[in-house]
Amino acid sequence: AFGPRAVASRSRRTARSEGPAALEMHFRPDTGPKVILPCVPSLQATAESYRIERDTFGELKVPSDKYYGAQTVRSTMNFKIGGVPERMPIQVIKAFGVLKRAAAEVNKEFGLETRIADAIVQAADEVVAGKLDDHFPLVVWQTGSGTQTNMNVNEVISNRAIELLGGTLGSKDPVHPNDHVNKSQSSNDTFPTAMHIAAATEVHKVLLPGLQTLHDALAGKAELFKDIIKIGRTHAQDAVPLTLGQEFGGYVQQVKYSMERVRGAMPRVYQLAAGGTAVGTGLNTRIGFAEKVADRVSALTGLPFVTAPNKFEALAAHDALVELSGALNTVAVSLMKIANDIRFLGSGPRSGLGELILPENEPGSSIMPGKVNPTQCEAITMVAAQVMGNHVAVTVGGSNGHFELNVFKPMIIKNVLNSARLLGDASVSFTENCVVGIEANQERIAKLMNESLMLVTALNPHIGYDKAATIAKTAHKQGLTLKAAAIKLGYLTEEQFEQWVQPQDMLGPK
Amino acid sequence: AFGPRAVASRSRRTARSEGPAALEMHFRPDTGPKVILPCVPSLQATAESYRIERDTFGELKVPSDKYYGAQTVRSTMNFKIGGVPERMPIQVIKAFGVLKRAAAEVNKEFGLETRIADAIVQAADEVVAGKLDDHFPLVVWQTGSGTQTNMNVNEVISNRAIELLGGTLGSKDPVHPNDHVNKSQSSNDTFPTAMHIAAATEVHKVLLPGLQTLHDALAGKAELFKDIIKIGRTHAQDAVPLTLGQEFGGYVQQVKYSMERVRGAMPRVYQLAAGGTAVGTGLNTRIGFAEKVADRVSALTGLPFVTAPNKFEALAAHDALVELSGALNTVAVSLMKIANDIRFLGSGPRSGLGELILPENEPGSSIMPGKVNPTQCEAITMVAAQVMGNHVAVTVGGSNGHFELNVFKPMIIKNVLNSARLLGDASVSFTENCVVGIEANQERIAKLMNESLMLVTALNPHIGYDKAATIAKTAHKQGLTLKAAAIKLGYLTEEQFEQWVQPQDMLGPK
Amino acid sequence: AFGPRAVASRSRRTARSEGPAALEMHFRPDTGPKVILPCVPSLQATAESYRIERDTFGELKVPSDKYYGAQTVRSTMNFKIGGVPERMPIQVIKAFGVLKRAAAEVNKEFGLETRIADAIVQAADEVVAGKLDDHFPLVVWQTGSGTQTNMNVNEVISNRAIELLGGTLGSKDPVHPNDHVNKSQSSNDTFPTAMHIAAATEVHKVLLPGLQTLHDALAGKAELFKDIIKIGRTHAQDAVPLTLGQEFGGYVQQVKYSMERVRGAMPRVYQLAAGGTAVGTGLNTRIGFAEKVADRVSALTGLPFVTAPNKFEALAAHDALVELSGALNTVAVSLMKIANDIRFLGSGPRSGLGELILPENEPGSSIMPGKVNPTQCEAITMVAAQVMGNHVAVTVGGSNGHFELNVFKPMIIKNVLNSARLLGDASVSFTENCVVGIEANQERIAKLMNESLMLVTALNPHIGYDKAATIAKTAHKQGLTLKAAAIKLGYLTEEQFEQWVQPQDMLGPK
Amino acid sequence: AFGPRAVASRSRRTARSEGPAALEMHFRPDTGPKVILPCVPSLQATAESYRIERDTFGELKVPSDKYYGAQTVRSTMNFKIGGVPERMPIQVIKAFGVLKRAAAEVNKEFGLETRIADAIVQAADEVVAGKLDDHFPLVVWQTGSGTQTNMNVNEVISNRAIELLGGTLGSKDPVHPNDHVNKSQSSNDTFPTAMHIAAATEVHKVLLPGLQTLHDALAGKAELFKDIIKIGRTHAQDAVPLTLGQEFGGYVQQVKYSMERVRGAMPRVYQLAAGGTAVGTGLNTRIGFAEKVADRVSALTGLPFVTAPNKFEALAAHDALVELSGALNTVAVSLMKIANDIRFLGSGPRSGLGELILPENEPGSSIMPGKVNPTQCEAITMVAAQVMGNHVAVTVGGSNGHFELNVFKPMIIKNVLNSARLLGDASVSFTENCVVGIEANQERIAKLMNESLMLVTALNPHIGYDKAATIAKTAHKQGLTLKAAAIKLGYLTEEQFEQWVQPQDMLGPK
Repeated sequence: AFGPRAVASRSRRTARSEGPAALEMHFRPDTGPKVILPCVPSLQATAESYRIERDTFGELKVPSDKYYGAQTVRSTMNFKIGGVPERMPIQVIKAFGVLKRAAAEVNKEFGLETRIADAIVQAADEVVAGKLDDHFPLVVWQTGSGTQTNMNVNEVISNRAIELLGGTLGSKDPVHPNDHVNKSQSSNDTFPTAMHIAAATEVHKVLLPGLQTLHDALAGKAELFKDIIKIGRTHAQDAVPLTLGQEFGGYVQQVKYSMERVRGAMPRVYQLAAGGTAVGTGLNTRIGFAEKVADRVSALTGLPFVTAPNKFEALAAHDALVELSGALNTVAVSLMKIANDIRFLGSGPRSGLGELILPENEPGSSIMPGKVNPTQCEAITMVAAQVMGNHVAVTVGGSNGHFELNVFKPMIIKNVLNSARLLGDASVSFTENCVVGIEANQERIAKLMNESLMLVTALNPHIGYDKAATIAKTAHKQGLTLKAAAIKLGYLTEEQFEQWVQPQDMLGPK
Repeated sequence: AFGPRAVASRSRRTARSEGPAALEMHFRPDTGPKVILPCVPSLQATAESYRIERDTFGELKVPSDKYYGAQTVRSTMNFKIGGVPERMPIQVIKAFGVLKRAAAEVNKEFGLETRIADAIVQAADEVVAGKLDDHFPLVVWQTGSGTQTNMNVNEVISNRAIELLGGTLGSKDPVHPNDHVNKSQSSNDTFPTAMHIAAATEVHKVLLPGLQTLHDALAGKAELFKDIIKIGRTHAQDAVPLTLGQEFGGYVQQVKYSMERVRGAMPRVYQLAAGGTAVGTGLNTRIGFAEKVADRVSALTGLPFVTAPNKFEALAAHDALVELSGALNTVAVSLMKIANDIRFLGSGPRSGLGELILPENEPGSSIMPGKVNPTQCEAITMVAAQVMGNHVAVTVGGSNGHFELNVFKPMIIKNVLNSARLLGDASVSFTENCVVGIEANQERIAKLMNESLMLVTALNPHIGYDKAATIAKTAHKQGLTLKAAAIKLGYLTEEQFEQWVQPQDMLGPK
Repeated sequence: AFGPRAVASRSRRTARSEGPAALEMHFRPDTGPKVILPCVPSLQATAESYRIERDTFGELKVPSDKYYGAQTVRSTMNFKIGGVPERMPIQVIKAFGVLKRAAAEVNKEFGLETRIADAIVQAADEVVAGKLDDHFPLVVWQTGSGTQTNMNVNEVISNRAIELLGGTLGSKDPVHPNDHVNKSQSSNDTFPTAMHIAAATEVHKVLLPGLQTLHDALAGKAELFKDIIKIGRTHAQDAVPLTLGQEFGGYVQQVKYSMERVRGAMPRVYQLAAGGTAVGTGLNTRIGFAEKVADRVSALTGLPFVTAPNKFEALAAHDALVELSGALNTVAVSLMKIANDIRFLGSGPRSGLGELILPENEPGSSIMPGKVNPTQCEAITMVAAQVMGNHVAVTVGGSNGHFELNVFKPMIIKNVLNSARLLGDASVSFTENCVVGIEANQERIAKLMNESLMLVTALNPHIGYDKAATIAKTAHKQGLTLKAAAIKLGYLTEEQFEQWVQPQDMLGPK
Repeated sequence: AFGPRAVASRSRRTARSEGPAALEMHFRPDTGPKVILPCVPSLQATAESYRIERDTFGELKVPSDKYYGAQTVRSTMNFKIGGVPERMPIQVIKAFGVLKRAAAEVNKEFGLETRIADAIVQAADEVVAGKLDDHFPLVVWQTGSGTQTNMNVNEVISNRAIELLGGTLGSKDPVHPNDHVNKSQSSNDTFPTAMHIAAATEVHKVLLPGLQTLHDALAGKAELFKDIIKIGRTHAQDAVPLTLGQEFGGYVQQVKYSMERVRGAMPRVYQLAAGGTAVGTGLNTRIGFAEKVADRVSALTGLPFVTAPNKFEALAAHDALVELSGALNTVAVSLMKIANDIRFLGSGPRSGLGELILPENEPGSSIMPGKVNPTQCEAITMVAAQVMGNHVAVTVGGSNGHFELNVFKPMIIKNVLNSARLLGDASVSFTENCVVGIEANQERIAKLMNESLMLVTALNPHIGYDKAATIAKTAHKQGLTLKAAAIKLGYLTEEQFEQWVQPQDMLGPK
């Protein structure tokens, strides 16, 4: 059977009251007793039944229904920072599951007892499948090497494997968290390996499909709008015309390049640190271990992971993730531009630019029918701002490594995963709830087009710049159309104007 | 009785599988079917029993056991971005509880039916008390005005108030979410008000106490270490001496100023937008409403909130929170410096600087006894990097407001609260698990002191710079002590050296 | 007579060709010889006549017409980074002039020979007056303590003082750069002192007056526009009305608070490190030196400088400048918002919002009369982006100090000064060339106002929300005015409409 | 003959006194008259002789000795922001020279009069050669499209070409700045083209060679140090050994990848906007113009420029430069890590880690012989911080484009060029003045190695983990060597210890 008998259900409320939720209002600032806000409370306190485990620092009470052990419990006591919302991203846990399975398989090749290896594999698969999510309580703000999360994974897998083999939880027998689950590994190489697996997976499962979805929808609109001629705007001011399809074509190109940029950063993300162990030398591993593990991870994930050619760099720096974050930052910049344009082009309904009609997704206001708030634009531009901020956090963390180990690892991967996820999700949301429903307000577009003073440009070859300028100035000052001004000034006939001023001839080189 | 009969318990696992957890491994990148990763799944799908509600867009199924209504459900369908980990910070929800109570009380003064006002007050109190946390499922990445969260709050409070008064959930009778709970309010002024209440509360409940805790511990160490003379380091190189107490005194000053900086940003955070309604004019409010609400909020929270002197600024910009974020950024800079120093001063045990002995909190390694990883330093420096990144996100969001409304509100408050919480929590964790346990390695400190070449400075007045320099150079080249070199060169006697080279005379002006 | 006989004039071209200018086009990338681009060329090469000086590393040729000495020349050889455009900001040099004068005066009190002290004072005054600008060639990218710039100043002042006293340049007699000009000082306390003097001066001479200028112009417009009722915009969409004066009033408040924020950061900037010498202890200074120097600097500058209460903090951290930079960042955020609004409100002339008429300052286009590019908005928003970037550089530098000395000093002050200068200058330029000339396009504003659907709100109390909503929806769908739709639907008479729909009644609480 | 008769020499002092230099000290803050600090003073005032030119706004005095014209002068009057230090980077001017030549050659193909085209080519070549640097006074903080700099270039080239053809400066005859020099061009496509040419050139001429230089020097050291076994450090604490060569090998890999990252960003930088004209449509150009210009630019520069496949994207966004800036940001992160390591490994001489001996480049202190300040590490880490800040400025600017034109162009290119230049220059300076001279302090390295407790790991297979742990703990507590502790405990003989504890066997997998 699977799992401990009584997995305590933890309601959302409980989860939250453990977190930063426990504000007491009605307080007097700075005068009351010292604030004690338990973030991740000592698990000793809340569990009704527990087993005793010990590490080199003494005894600890471990909840009976949990697979984790002493080192995990101790971490929850030492790092009460941020609480539940700040837990290690579950993607990292799952990536560890993949890695631990791969390592067990390779260790089996190198002699690890089959029975043990197979149990580890099965337990690791359960981690990947999300069956053990409740057993990973640690927050991001822990050891900068992620050691405690590695140990959390080792403890959970070993205990689950022990259970599968009929042993006693916490006995470390017959599956030892260090000697077996962590065999040939160190936190210092496994955590960065899990970082890369998680990041690459998130990019391929969430970000790139999201961008592709957005790309395709924008491309569809570019095609649909290819014959709608509209006024261009430079400096946010009226300029010469282009088609709405051309305008959307610019967005399509940005998203196309966004995907190229992300893909361009992946080769170094595919490089795995596994096999470097404590400082990059590979002490206590076997020759070939690194390559075999990378092969197994690649097979398990379907992504082209390879072993990092230089393990020292792979532990001591996270340049590959800073680079990926830089690509995500550029994606954010692109999406900010696109969403801002759509927001403004859809502004109105009466007092804005009004060229686009955006889908209405929710009641805008109880007062104003016709008011469409560009809420999807707002969500995605907020995401863009967040990604820019995340990128700075990653940059600062990446730059502060020392000697053989960068110790900003959990913070770095948290931000990279957050950026990838938010960009991917927001792209889909923006596409499905906004882009696909965008319509051109052709009447408005044509009206602005026709009123535009700068169509006068077309007259230059026929009547010369000076007369054309006079027409435009007259139209501007007197509030006339160009045609009216032209005829009033007697520079040309209505027929000539109709013949010469043709926006559709202004859309490309000749 | 309180609450719906059957509040569905939502296990942590469920919560997570709604979130970004649902990675499927074993995939082939870019070749499989389009990824569908439900983030916040349509609540229609998961609820076993529901009631039908409708808004102007049609019918929706609302889970029977939830107080929220149609607009909340619709938002979960439109904004599947990031899932559970990206929910609106609970502090914002609680701040809304405070505001809704305050508004109801003031509306009662202005004529709102007592029965209704009192029910709103009671329901709002339950929100503040955290009893209704399960009823706020929306994520940060929604409308940039936070409108949907305001409506979520309105719906929850109205339904809970209806229940208290014996009515039917979803009937909007006798307590209407808009007409009563949101009376004299708009999302555009309530959300920024909740932002300021939440930020000020987090600062006073978490951040300032955390910094004070750290300050006091550092000050205690500065006093304790005041007579330990040690070598100074500039450019990370050996320099003239100071006391370890002086060194810690610099840290004390940084944390003291950190608190001053945060307090210096608060006056503008205490200004509340409430009363500005849709665009800042206060349309549909009563004269005096704004002031009275601010007074009530002040009384309820014990913080000196006032009504913002200019509501247009208060809606259209969030400069006050950008400013506060700037103060938090400076705090992060200070903490990064302090934690880095302590990390390096405690490095070793044999091959580092080794002047400080840091408390050992967890097994460092299964191999190396005596290895103390400065894990608390790592956690707090990761927090510092995060805060620097959050600050950029806030800056970008703050700079992108347009006309009467900045629409990066949820993102801004999420980051400000995150920074305040992490800095406060990390300060406490760092203090309790590291600072209070720091000991001076006096033997090591004395050894480095005594070996230092730059004590030669003390000889300048006695034998002149040139001879002093020769002594130092000789000591450096030949690996001698200064004293040995001085005697070997015959420039002075051992007694003279002992008399003149006194580090304790080098600690201040004369 | 003043100065060396033959101060070589250095043309701008020369200056530039020393800098990054020397691109050779026509090259083949990566295949040619190693690029040698002299940035600050060895001064040995370009000077036609020189004197020989030596430091402990050997002989150096110093140009005869320069007051600086060997240490300056050596720095130009060791730090060929960025060239002339990257020189230490002249404000830092001048601040050093103030400090060196103050120190000489205090040293005289403590016994420094009058003749020497007075010559130093005179030479320092010439530095402040800008008479010796040619003698400070060093770039920002040098020692992180700014030691070489301190020595550059010491050398120039000592040589100029020697000249005043009839001595020989380079002889260090009778005025020694270290023993006399640098007396009781260290680079480690003088450079941060100069940083604070320069920053405070730039804030008071450039930034605050610039912001005041902008504030006053905006306040003038707010008053002028106080009776112009216009449509409000939230989410960049049509909303309820406000006055143009109210809208500008929000900007006024932002700039008012900008000044408050900057002023709020100054108390810690006024604290001077002088007197802390090498590590903060004040070794080799006299009791009272620190206080007296701060007093003198205060008297010389008219700014309320005081001695820093904790010199260790003042050398090891630059939190005060990070804090100031945070205030500048907030100012940038405010200005970005204001300039963006003005840009969009002035967009057109035909196809934009068109509510403001911005002054035309330069030919917009040779084709389109009436096209006003909002170039001042563009300059100031570019400045805002730069300041946000500068702030991150300052933050990163500020966070990376170690032990007794932060060694990112030149970079930090460069960015702070740049931000203060650009914000101040841009505020004046924006004011004089844009704000003061802004006119309201009252016809356009009235038209948009009157067409607005959301004035229907005013009918709610008279005919109820449902009928009002029907009017608005009808108007929106059929492209009618509200009045036309109302009459068409038969809900009210033209007279009633005129009586009830009064925008001027929607501008405040009742 | 070349140039105007009397090119006024502008001394450095003049240049600076125009800039932010003109601080008056002795002022009273906020009380004196409004500060008037001319930044780029009206050129009317300073020129002794001038010619009258006019644009559509009226007459202007243009200095007789300058090739620029009315639009340039007007810009100096409208944008007094930052002064001389804020001038448009000369690299942009030179890139414009390349572009203007290329355009003239293509225009000749399309029919531009040979005499005129050839004169433009010759004048443009002089711009590229740096002969006309004095004629480009404009600052970065101007129109966000860079229009005024494009006109500055057009005016200078046209006047110089007129002079070559014997005409009168300012007459626009026979070479018109708009009709001939700017033919088939717009500021909106030429400025981004110049941005890409300048950025690509700086990358190839400065950045990549600089990184290659650094790479090669580090690789040399890695080879040289390959047999020196040293203690590793993780968490800045003692860890298992590696070779110094392996440690440097990590740095080599970082710099190798730095170059790969920069190269990976170039494909999109090689895409040129030229041919898109005002909004991207290519209005007023000829079919083929865009491709031919890109070909010519490619031939002239030796870089593989191509015409941008989508001109709308190329004008409206600068994602390619944001991407490049992201690569530079990653380079900065790498260099920060490397320089920090070297700084700390070289710390001492007595009280630091002391494993490396860094070259001494300048007098460290007049007091302490043997003190080597790691000044090159300081310069390059300051550069790294600057680049991180520049990147945020570029990001913010890149994200704020609207519709058909991003108007943060000058700011963006200024920062990208600054980052590329500083990183390239600093890499060379760091290499030549630090890396090449680094020596291993083998005695110190061996001492730390041999004292290390964690060599005990090697005993695990022989005496078991528990006994090994006891040895280490005993050694740590009693301050013994491992060997002494092992023998004292009687667990093994001296011979066995010597045989089993061999650091050279701990450097890789088995």
